[in-house]
Amino acid sequence: MGKPLKQLNLKDIKITDELFGAYVGKVSEKIIPHQWKILNDQLEGAEATHCIENFRIAAKETQGERKGVVFQDTDLYKWLEAVAYCLASGKGKIYEDLADQVIDLIGRAQENDGYLNTYFTINAPDKKWTNLVEGHELYTSGHLMEAAVAYYEATGKEKLLIIAKKNADLICQVFGKTEEQIHGYPGHQEVELGLIKLYRITGKEKYLETANYFIRERGAKPNYFKREIETRGGYEFFPEFYDYDLEYSQAHKPPLQQTKAHGHAVRAMYMCTAMADLAQEYNDEEMQKACKKIWSNVVEKRMYITGGIGSSGFRERFTTDYDLPNRTNYSETCASIGLMMFGQRMASLFKDARYYDIVEKALYNTVIAGINIEGDRYFYVNPLEVIPEFCTEHTYMSHVKPVRQKWFSVACCPPNVARTLASLGQYIYAQDEEALYIHQFISSEAKAYIGGCSINIFMDSQLLQNGQVKINVEMSESKTIKIRIPSYAGKYKVLVDGESREDIVLNGYYSVELTEGKHELLICFSVKPRWIGANPRVQEDSGKVALVRGPIVYCLEEIDNIKLLSTVFVDLTNEIYLEESDKALIGNVPALTYKGIQIHNNKITDQLYGDIEFTKKEIKLKAVPYCLWNNRGQGEMLVWQKVRI
Amino acid sequence: MGKPLKQLNLKDIKITDELFGAYVGKVSEKIIPHQWKILNDQLEGAEATHCIENFRIAAKETQGERKGVVFQDTDLYKWLEAVAYCLASGKGKIYEDLADQVIDLIGRAQENDGYLNTYFTINAPDKKWTNLVEGHELYTSGHLMEAAVAYYEATGKEKLLIIAKKNADLICQVFGKTEEQIHGYPGHQEVELGLIKLYRITGKEKYLETANYFIRERGAKPNYFKREIETRGGYEFFPEFYDYDLEYSQAHKPPLQQTKAHGHAVRAMYMCTAMADLAQEYNDEEMQKACKKIWSNVVEKRMYITGGIGSSGFRERFTTDYDLPNRTNYSETCASIGLMMFGQRMASLFKDARYYDIVEKALYNTVIAGINIEGDRYFYVNPLEVIPEFCTEHTYMSHVKPVRQKWFSVACCPPNVARTLASLGQYIYAQDEEALYIHQFISSEAKAYIGGCSINIFMDSQLLQNGQVKINVEMSESKTIKIRIPSYAGKYKVLVDGESREDIVLNGYYSVELTEGKHELLICFSVKPRWIGANPRVQEDSGKVALVRGPIVYCLEEIDNIKLLSTVFVDLTNEIYLEESDKALIGNVPALTYKGIQIHNNKITDQLYGDIEFTKKEIKLKAVPYCLWNNRGQGEMLVWQKVRI
Repeated sequence: MGKPLKQLNLKDIKITDELFGAYVGKVSEKIIPHQWKILNDQLEGAEATHCIENFRIAAKETQGERKGVVFQDTDLYKWLEAVAYCLASGKGKIYEDLADQVIDLIGRAQENDGYLNTYFTINAPDKKWTNLVEGHELYTSGHLMEAAVAYYEATGKEKLLIIAKKNADLICQVFGKTEEQIHGYPGHQEVELGLIKLYRITGKEKYLETANYFIRERGAKPNYFKREIETRGGYEFFPEFYDYDLEYSQAHKPPLQQTKAHGHAVRAMYMCTAMADLAQEYNDEEMQKACKKIWSNVVEKRMYITGGIGSSGFRERFTTDYDLPNRTNYSETCASIGLMMFGQRMASLFKDARYYDIVEKALYNTVIAGINIEGDRYFYVNPLEVIPEFCTEHTYMSHVKPVRQKWFSVACCPPNVARTLASLGQYIYAQDEEALYIHQFISSEAKAYIGGCSINIFMDSQLLQNGQVKINVEMSESKTIKIRIPSYAGKYKVLVDGESREDIVLNGYYSVELTEGKHELLICFSVKPRWIGANPRVQEDSGKVALVRGPIVYCLEEIDNIKLLSTVFVDLTNEIYLEESDKALIGNVPALTYKGIQIHNNKITDQLYGDIEFTKKEIKLKAVPYCLWNNRGQGEMLVWQKVRI
Repeated sequence: MGKPLKQLNLKDIKITDELFGAYVGKVSEKIIPHQWKILNDQLEGAEATHCIENFRIAAKETQGERKGVVFQDTDLYKWLEAVAYCLASGKGKIYEDLADQVIDLIGRAQENDGYLNTYFTINAPDKKWTNLVEGHELYTSGHLMEAAVAYYEATGKEKLLIIAKKNADLICQVFGKTEEQIHGYPGHQEVELGLIKLYRITGKEKYLETANYFIRERGAKPNYFKREIETRGGYEFFPEFYDYDLEYSQAHKPPLQQTKAHGHAVRAMYMCTAMADLAQEYNDEEMQKACKKIWSNVVEKRMYITGGIGSSGFRERFTTDYDLPNRTNYSETCASIGLMMFGQRMASLFKDARYYDIVEKALYNTVIAGINIEGDRYFYVNPLEVIPEFCTEHTYMSHVKPVRQKWFSVACCPPNVARTLASLGQYIYAQDEEALYIHQFISSEAKAYIGGCSINIFMDSQLLQNGQVKINVEMSESKTIKIRIPSYAGKYKVLVDGESREDIVLNGYYSVELTEGKHELLICFSVKPRWIGANPRVQEDSGKVALVRGPIVYCLEEIDNIKLLSTVFVDLTNEIYLEESDKALIGNVPALTYKGIQIHNNKITDQLYGDIEFTKKEIKLKAVPYCLWNNRGQGEMLVWQKVRI
């Protein structure tokens, strides 16, 4: 297959996009300073997270009780990772000093043998590594490693990398096949990703080997987690785990034998991402096959049209094939970020652009829906239908929030969105020895260096407006450019320096060889609004349709339409019109309008049930991008609309 | 208002009904012997319940560990209550000796001061009454009292009554207003019902007063439960209560100030039943008003068309107005039994037959659905739409079972169904000084004694077949008979001794004064199949209809139709035909057949999402009574059908 794809250096990419640029800008302007306050318990009105204070206590620089969840340390590591990506893109410079100081503190909190985890260091030093199911020690270390690599790549400073390596060395010593080592693996996958990144930057094989060990040992018989739970006699940290099952953390059988996406969706995606990395590093065909099987199961049977995954609101997990409820699902923002990561690795491994269709779906819909326009409110849960009154606490709906929430204490999604946005360039461009790859049509400027060739790229994407993407390139020598042709492209057209060209699309890529000098590529995609249906086995969506245009899934919001959106039917023969975007929204993405039918039962007024006498009236409907919903106050929202048959 | 209604003596009622008779027969034939084995750990292949063994340990007749849930004792009490009702109707005679022996054992397990609870006696004698939120001590006592009253009424034997009174005396001493008493109340309401029954049979005012105290103290400030939880520092018995809220057990404010049905549905209904009893006993108008408000909220905003209540699958509880999901709901069998109890008390209190419309709805649909035809499998959860493949463990659907379950260990619904069926006569007939009341049209024979008048009643109900109910009565002197006219009756007709009569219906009752001698009443109700719609605020049912006939809600089952029932639409203009009942079902209730439309999207084969090209084909549909579903193997089931608009 040749060498896999690698990403361009984030330093060399600048996002200028109307839609994404606005969000990316929020990371350094708002999210990073906001989170810094949270980490330091300086946010008024917010419950203390104790995050940095815990490190001070672990470093014995202050006394007190260690507080917060068992994985509270990761908040700081994720903050550092996001800061690193901002610094790489030349933003957030004022946070570098703070970062350096807090990295010093982390170093002081690390134990001599490399152990680093404020919970166990302070509260339970004799219980290290005894509760892999719930303890999140390895998960926490994984985020440390990812932050360290990012910070090193952004700044060239080695301090955090040294800390992470020392920690990784300990882990490689503690876990493994020999009799003296623990034959366990993480309850929440993540350390595998950190170890692989560390390996790639240090070249130390043992990091890769230990990541591989964790994946290959997982779910082996006799089951490590089962024995651990039996020895402990139940749960320790999370009372809601009283009926924990091995599938929850994909430990019911070895990942290489798994053919479906099971359990907690974020755990599953982080695991699969690591598996794809390992499949690449070891050129491991068995691992490649396993990745393909799980990937297919996710995208062909267990994924929402928005790229959301994990349809069980209870336990944030996968359920079963075709079970995709729209109102009770979890579809965690982080899970879709995980799906983006998995898709990116799969595309790199197989050099197949079609994986990026799914990355795009998740990014443009669920992931961006996770954050508001202002950059200070977040959705963890991303349903496809919301009736605000029904989102009641302590019920089957308690996980669903009708409005984005402020980010205060325990939080995976906000910093995950932040690091994804801050490193967005990695999903847009890639390269190998022979070509530059363009995977997303997000306006940006970039520089690529392939062998002796340097390429300057200026992408001006009007994909969401009129489907046109203009890419100007300056080539220092001739090279191939490979452009992803998305599945929704329809009858697309490519003009190279004004001339129409026809080329074969292979593995989802349109290839064009460009000579030294300046060139202009103009790609015109069809972005006609389309009604989409679901497989009939998705019974939730039977007789319903979703409106999409390009990569964007549209939804109806109460503010543009009416209350009781479920009383509305659409007629597929009616014309759909483009309308200027509401000024309160960003990205200049057109709204879509069309006529619908609203039904009313004249026989029912206040009673709960009654006879039937339906009347129908015409109603003008207006749909907006799902990713922008709930930016204009609380109200109903609906993706899958009933169709008049 | 005059004196409230009271029920006839169960000894004087014999159920001969084609549908209900079959179930009632199962109680003494199957359920009681089966449960006896369970209580004694003699059921092969079933996990030991330890129920009777616990009493032996508490009585110090054997040694060993007390096992089972904290409220395991109630299994025995519910068994005794069901045995009592069977004995009252002249059945299950062979169990009287066993009952007497086990009653002796209960007596020996009781402590000298009257305390009786094997968990606390054996495991935590120093923690009595310290965990009212979770401990179920008062709940357990309530079931003891109900069993004792039933057994005394059935057999005249006082032994269990003496035990229950001694226990009640202790409770009345421990709980109350004075400084030395505990100012608490039960975490799970039930003892109030037991105390009221004890009062009615003994005339001891303090039992009534303590029941009243429990209701009036509940939710008062400062909140007893809140303080208890704070003192204890969290949950003790049920890890899933880690985020317990006061609304769960209706303790967020005093019941008299509650206007909506909140929290755990069974708890709520038991509380309301007690409130209605107290409202009657004290002629308490404030309490009456509170009962009416909560009742209205349940039946006008929070109840399924099947009489199911508690729409949150999580925590078996109410959610909010109009939130009635069909696939994820709990709608516990016991909750609908609670609704029957509440409705019966309300009807007695206000002498209004319309409450029995709801009792009938719950009984004929959800409650009977709770048990299979053979009498050996049970549903705890009663959804209105089931897709068996989607009922996966450890997910948001883990509570929903696609087939009725064997009854093994912890179980409230099976014995609750058993005692309801065994005492079914209480819902059919009632009396006051002036009249005999007929509330349900279930074939039966009964004797009533009103003042000096004795009435023999022979009811032959063909309500579910052709809508005709024939009631033959023999009157020893002239008396009024009041017959409930159900809301679905339509243009009904009453023939008294062959002559047509017109009478005013008041409070849902049709009254007829009958003279001494024999009479025949023939009532002809309209039982034309009807399509019913839901309030548009029940968004789950927008554009959907349910098929009902008389009190029976119909459903589509896969076995009679197809898989993927959600692809089917009905056309309200199509004729509905009666068809003979499937021989595998009981009760000779006709099936309903009609033409529907099935849609198919030609553009989708295996993929999850795709373009749309719908084709429609005609399909013959067959609906069967919801209460009889899943008696012919596992398959899809659907109540609310999509309507073609």
